[in-house]
Amino acid sequence: MKLWQKDTGSKKEVEQFTIGRDPEFDIILAPFDVLGSMAHAHMLEKIGLLTPEDNATLQKGLKEIYSEISEGKFSIASGVEDVHSQVEFLLTERFGEVGKKLHSGRSRNDQVLVDLKLFYRAAIKELVEETVELFELLIELSEKHKNDLMPGYTHTQLAMPSSFGLWFGSFAEGLTEDLGLLKAAFDLSNKNPLGSAAGYGSSFPLDRTLTTSLLGFADMHHNVVNAQNSRGKTERTLAFAMAGIAGTLNRMAADVCLFMNQHFAFISFPDDLTTGSSIMPHKKNPDVFELIRAKTNQIQGVPTTVSFLLTNMSTGYHRDMQLLKEEIFPAFDKLKSCIGMSTFMLKSIKIRQNILQDSFYKHVFSVEVVNDLVLKGVPFRDAYKQVGYEIEADQFAPDQNHLNHTHEGSIGNLCSTAIQAKMRAATQSFDFSKIDSAYERLIG
Amino acid sequence: MKLWQKDTGSKKEVEQFTIGRDPEFDIILAPFDVLGSMAHAHMLEKIGLLTPEDNATLQKGLKEIYSEISEGKFSIASGVEDVHSQVEFLLTERFGEVGKKLHSGRSRNDQVLVDLKLFYRAAIKELVEETVELFELLIELSEKHKNDLMPGYTHTQLAMPSSFGLWFGSFAEGLTEDLGLLKAAFDLSNKNPLGSAAGYGSSFPLDRTLTTSLLGFADMHHNVVNAQNSRGKTERTLAFAMAGIAGTLNRMAADVCLFMNQHFAFISFPDDLTTGSSIMPHKKNPDVFELIRAKTNQIQGVPTTVSFLLTNMSTGYHRDMQLLKEEIFPAFDKLKSCIGMSTFMLKSIKIRQNILQDSFYKHVFSVEVVNDLVLKGVPFRDAYKQVGYEIEADQFAPDQNHLNHTHEGSIGNLCSTAIQAKMRAATQSFDFSKIDSAYERLIG
Amino acid sequence: MKLWQKDTGSKKEVEQFTIGRDPEFDIILAPFDVLGSMAHAHMLEKIGLLTPEDNATLQKGLKEIYSEISEGKFSIASGVEDVHSQVEFLLTERFGEVGKKLHSGRSRNDQVLVDLKLFYRAAIKELVEETVELFELLIELSEKHKNDLMPGYTHTQLAMPSSFGLWFGSFAEGLTEDLGLLKAAFDLSNKNPLGSAAGYGSSFPLDRTLTTSLLGFADMHHNVVNAQNSRGKTERTLAFAMAGIAGTLNRMAADVCLFMNQHFAFISFPDDLTTGSSIMPHKKNPDVFELIRAKTNQIQGVPTTVSFLLTNMSTGYHRDMQLLKEEIFPAFDKLKSCIGMSTFMLKSIKIRQNILQDSFYKHVFSVEVVNDLVLKGVPFRDAYKQVGYEIEADQFAPDQNHLNHTHEGSIGNLCSTAIQAKMRAATQSFDFSKIDSAYERLIG
Amino acid sequence: MKLWQKDTGSKKEVEQFTIGRDPEFDIILAPFDVLGSMAHAHMLEKIGLLTPEDNATLQKGLKEIYSEISEGKFSIASGVEDVHSQVEFLLTERFGEVGKKLHSGRSRNDQVLVDLKLFYRAAIKELVEETVELFELLIELSEKHKNDLMPGYTHTQLAMPSSFGLWFGSFAEGLTEDLGLLKAAFDLSNKNPLGSAAGYGSSFPLDRTLTTSLLGFADMHHNVVNAQNSRGKTERTLAFAMAGIAGTLNRMAADVCLFMNQHFAFISFPDDLTTGSSIMPHKKNPDVFELIRAKTNQIQGVPTTVSFLLTNMSTGYHRDMQLLKEEIFPAFDKLKSCIGMSTFMLKSIKIRQNILQDSFYKHVFSVEVVNDLVLKGVPFRDAYKQVGYEIEADQFAPDQNHLNHTHEGSIGNLCSTAIQAKMRAATQSFDFSKIDSAYERLIG
Repeated sequence: MKLWQKDTGSKKEVEQFTIGRDPEFDIILAPFDVLGSMAHAHMLEKIGLLTPEDNATLQKGLKEIYSEISEGKFSIASGVEDVHSQVEFLLTERFGEVGKKLHSGRSRNDQVLVDLKLFYRAAIKELVEETVELFELLIELSEKHKNDLMPGYTHTQLAMPSSFGLWFGSFAEGLTEDLGLLKAAFDLSNKNPLGSAAGYGSSFPLDRTLTTSLLGFADMHHNVVNAQNSRGKTERTLAFAMAGIAGTLNRMAADVCLFMNQHFAFISFPDDLTTGSSIMPHKKNPDVFELIRAKTNQIQGVPTTVSFLLTNMSTGYHRDMQLLKEEIFPAFDKLKSCIGMSTFMLKSIKIRQNILQDSFYKHVFSVEVVNDLVLKGVPFRDAYKQVGYEIEADQFAPDQNHLNHTHEGSIGNLCSTAIQAKMRAATQSFDFSKIDSAYERLIG
Repeated sequence: MKLWQKDTGSKKEVEQFTIGRDPEFDIILAPFDVLGSMAHAHMLEKIGLLTPEDNATLQKGLKEIYSEISEGKFSIASGVEDVHSQVEFLLTERFGEVGKKLHSGRSRNDQVLVDLKLFYRAAIKELVEETVELFELLIELSEKHKNDLMPGYTHTQLAMPSSFGLWFGSFAEGLTEDLGLLKAAFDLSNKNPLGSAAGYGSSFPLDRTLTTSLLGFADMHHNVVNAQNSRGKTERTLAFAMAGIAGTLNRMAADVCLFMNQHFAFISFPDDLTTGSSIMPHKKNPDVFELIRAKTNQIQGVPTTVSFLLTNMSTGYHRDMQLLKEEIFPAFDKLKSCIGMSTFMLKSIKIRQNILQDSFYKHVFSVEVVNDLVLKGVPFRDAYKQVGYEIEADQFAPDQNHLNHTHEGSIGNLCSTAIQAKMRAATQSFDFSKIDSAYERLIG
Repeated sequence: MKLWQKDTGSKKEVEQFTIGRDPEFDIILAPFDVLGSMAHAHMLEKIGLLTPEDNATLQKGLKEIYSEISEGKFSIASGVEDVHSQVEFLLTERFGEVGKKLHSGRSRNDQVLVDLKLFYRAAIKELVEETVELFELLIELSEKHKNDLMPGYTHTQLAMPSSFGLWFGSFAEGLTEDLGLLKAAFDLSNKNPLGSAAGYGSSFPLDRTLTTSLLGFADMHHNVVNAQNSRGKTERTLAFAMAGIAGTLNRMAADVCLFMNQHFAFISFPDDLTTGSSIMPHKKNPDVFELIRAKTNQIQGVPTTVSFLLTNMSTGYHRDMQLLKEEIFPAFDKLKSCIGMSTFMLKSIKIRQNILQDSFYKHVFSVEVVNDLVLKGVPFRDAYKQVGYEIEADQFAPDQNHLNHTHEGSIGNLCSTAIQAKMRAATQSFDFSKIDSAYERLIG
Repeated sequence: MKLWQKDTGSKKEVEQFTIGRDPEFDIILAPFDVLGSMAHAHMLEKIGLLTPEDNATLQKGLKEIYSEISEGKFSIASGVEDVHSQVEFLLTERFGEVGKKLHSGRSRNDQVLVDLKLFYRAAIKELVEETVELFELLIELSEKHKNDLMPGYTHTQLAMPSSFGLWFGSFAEGLTEDLGLLKAAFDLSNKNPLGSAAGYGSSFPLDRTLTTSLLGFADMHHNVVNAQNSRGKTERTLAFAMAGIAGTLNRMAADVCLFMNQHFAFISFPDDLTTGSSIMPHKKNPDVFELIRAKTNQIQGVPTTVSFLLTNMSTGYHRDMQLLKEEIFPAFDKLKSCIGMSTFMLKSIKIRQNILQDSFYKHVFSVEVVNDLVLKGVPFRDAYKQVGYEIEADQFAPDQNHLNHTHEGSIGNLCSTAIQAKMRAATQSFDFSKIDSAYERLIG
């Protein structure tokens, strides 16, 4: 039974096909739906569509429901269409006619939109927190292993000396940069769509500035058509942002799988963090990192599917947009667990030491030797040729013990402090505290 | 012949397969390569790897080459590998041994990286400028047509009254929001990679802070491995940003194609901006907007291909990354022309007037009537049912002349000023002037 | 606890992260796992690794388990790793040591591979059956409405006369063509990988020809490395094939949503198959077709994610491949329901008649008039110009009642019989009966 | 100037934006356009729209033009819109009014469609030929190196003994399987769309069976709407097919890059087929295979972009489809060169011998030892544990010289003959000779 239905019901085949995974997602949206309704009711009072008494009743009822949700006591009754209807039913059941007044001046479209935006802000906050935790571990590992040299590769070929300090630190700095895309997604999520109704506004004198403030939004989507068109655009931007972080994790995971290969054997993990084989008793497989690599690939596929759902479509809501949730909601969980498992695993990583002292790696010192010649006055191009001939004649025997890299961001000067400052600046740009304060005022 | 080659040459099949479209792209990178070399040479002087005289000679030579490039007199000589080699050859040819000293302390990898970053910043600037021009036209059209009503659709079904003011304005505000992704891409492009050499830094005491400042970068990629890993990440972020703008244009183009359909006939363009048919003499086809729709789809495909080139790959440069240029460079041009043609076409758009006065559209006023009942005290859910029954009984006859939407972002209150303020804030966040000043200091 | 584990267990965080949705998918694979084991055991007997008695015992046990699965009595016991272990545990529990002998000469890799291939064949069969059902309805509708004219569009502009007969028939023929890709996927699924072990074969003298025949495979992957590399390739091909069918449904759904728009109003569905709006009492939305459009877009996104999981990866099994199931298994269900719902809905479609008799559509007859002139001897290019001028002068008044299209596949000659013959040929090429016979022999 | 234009011309901005890369592609289509016109003219004669004399004149003229194209003397005159207009202009210029009669009964839409189908068939033929050449080399290398053992990996971890014979052979068999998708694409390309006009057929009594036969098509798209809808579907299927082959080459290239890494050092190439570094004199980089890996990734991105161009679009031609050429035409060249360069490079591949005799690899023999125990009567699960404990106690010392794999597709039994038979069957299924015969009859 649908709140907004006249007499005819839908065939059950239609119900079943159209409902999809919404019941599962609606439970996630429930607390945000209540918060949105609180703000909406306050606003309706201000513009005279609710009496102060009605609003007080609704606020009381909504707080009750919010508590029930927090305590896990909320569910969508059988036969009730969705979370929005369930909340309205509960209010009407408990307080009578006033419950029916709450939907004035809004449509299911902007109600869902605002629920989604509130949820996205919360999900982004969790991603940022997970990211910061991984970041801090990476910085710690980078500092701890700053003197542990390893070879650096280009073209998957041995190239030059590198270090575990550099390697861990590269992902730390990478994560600070990935937050730029996440901030763009946050900014889109942090704009109030409420009041756009079905995407064309309302003849009621809604006060959208008030709901913007009550819900702690940084701004509103002013144009109501644009507010509706933000459905999809917000999700696409979230997909890009998650793909960005996923890209960094994917690369780290690819490295780990390579460096655990026995030919490299640069790193290892305790036995209970690796997996064996059903027929090969000697195997210790890097399954967790293979799955981080794979799951971050799935996340990198999300932008494509999201864009398929949106492209070539005319302005205005289409039911297609319901399925954006199927793409975005699981991606949040997947990405969060990939970041979390990266942290979990890296806490136990073991590093092989003294790798570069093996003569197998002598060629990675070739540029050092070229540079030494340059510092002695040989023009670069000539020094390069000289070392090249030594290598071909197998007469190249560099000092594999000394390395003196001093410039910003090099082996000897990791700039962790500067990188940490970037992370601080990045996370502070989100201003989650404004949202927390707004919610506190609403829930009291 | 390659500068950095020893005696053996590559087979011509290999040369041909590996060179790809680089000669074409190298010409685009030429001025940026020279700027990067200027900064690098100043830095080499500061750290004592070049004498003041050598640097003065190189600066003079580089300025000459920069002028030649500006005047279209620069080309890559037959047999020379790439733009970087050509610049070095010219310097050596004209000034002797000093030309050979320029490459000290850098690798082809960070040289290309810095060239790309400088080019991306310039290309982003052009995108922003094109976007602002389209934005201003959209705001102008929005204001001009604020009283021209049209129907709004949901589910491609007639829904509620809308206006051309809202419609144009929605894309204007949408563009301000798209700049968030572009800013994220700009921030990545605006970080100095120079000094990261092949991705593992250098034993020379390079002063990366100096080149960061000389080239007008906002910051550097500190960690040198991360600097190298920014190859690909920068392009992926650019691809996302271009796909974001493309998504907005795609939707606008989809609307235009639909609204030009004879059943709608809401808008039209002069004959010389549409196209006919080879067998149907009555056709006036919206080819330009079909192609904007299609080209923005191609741009939305770029993130996928870019991600394919990068995923599952270990840290460090791989030759695969060369092909990022094939994806990103043409996308800039394509997007720029799509924005530019949107502006060009919309300057001539003609709007049908008084659309909603036709009784065909009476149902779009149903919510108005519901809301009027609510304002008279009928609870929303009851008013909704009453109007529903009137419609089913074919007794619905609303006033199609009056509409009073007043809230923020609605038909009667477009908030153009607020939207323009957003665009101003968005564009100012790029700070292109810092780059211009830096270049002026370098070129003098 | 894992069958193949030595003493160390995995941390529970690792278990949880790596297990993913496998328990859900394993239940789907269970009957196929038993079938594969039956064939494997027969083969082990033939090469002397099992005694006839042992094999008889195993066959009896496997048949029991197969029945339990069919009756829904099978589940994976808590603490047991996967379906393969559960089957082996049951055998060992019930029959002792002989259960431990079953895994000789195979690895988890080729065991899973063969399970997947058997499942894919079965899933493809269901897709073919659903497709044929929709096809037959489309042919029926095409014949029923062969005289109901409608306009045809190019560039979303009115172009020429068409008919509902042509429209329905186009998707019917389209489906016959989509089966080409599905056949390619079937052929890959219909090749035996058993005996490839972990991808490098076995030192046992396995008889792969025998298991190929016992399982009703058309052929085997001969090269064992290629057999293992077919993991991923098979799924990618399946993804392509499903995307192909999805593309046809997507286009049909896009048409339906457009033709239900009130400006067109060419088709409609009973009220209980459409949906209303929470604020607009007049709405009858095409939600089912919007969701078919959207779900077929999700399916079209699957090839990208599958390819991300595979690309740039070296030969041999990687744990990443486990996640292919997450992409492919749900896609089967989604596509099946999209085909099924298309059939369900189209059974109730209502067609507007006499559309083209309205003078609004007169221009679509322009080519008819041009052709009449040509038949009277006017060169085509001159006739085209003459009609063009008549239209511009608003003097064009064609006969909108007569139409005489006679060539193959045109309005007056739908060629349904030829199209049905194509479908018959396409479906027969799958030869599912060979599989059925093989299973019957195994299960007895 | 356009043939089909009335008096108004398009603005030059519009011309430039809409023409895109068509002039470049039109030259490729030219010979096929002439062949299509030959068949169309014969058919027009048969149905009485051309006199025998007119047709004879047109055939003569078309043959002349065909020769000019073959000799490279054909170009599109400045101001002429496209290849179709150029051919018609030449005919009219040379033979007068009869030239104007050729376009009767067709539209630009089906004319382009037939040109594309003919071109695709020819391009597919070239792909098949390149594929066969690579296949034969792979079989040859597989046989040559059947006794050269190498380790096989799972999870990028050392797993079991493999051989270069298996490794080369796996790609050979993989290619035979990739032809299944290409055959599906060929079948779609090998259906005649001519006579579908603008997608809605013609009032002329066209004889489509005749043109089907004259052009050597295996069949026609019967339904004319479906014929038009095959635009896009054909390209998507081609994109899938090319992505399929690309996937196989990508994996081979990934292996090559890994095996050239110094830790593996399994394979090498002559110096003149690898590339050096601008700062590291010791580098020999696998650039060609990195670029094959990258280019095959670009090709794997094509299905996404093609699908973006098509999805959510209603039936009928849209100008968007023009851009399919931009995606598909270059992909043919790219894939062809990737296959060709694979062949070129592999001709010079050098294999390291006796790899597995190094004790570093002893663990890959663990399954051999387990199997030996099983053959001596130890149950598999017990043998597995025993060997596992030996390995942990570092007491594992297998015989690394003997290996006896005999089953189908294993190290000792490569089944090259069976694999070659598959390739023969696959290539014969294309039946290119029927096309050649048809063209011969047309051109005479």
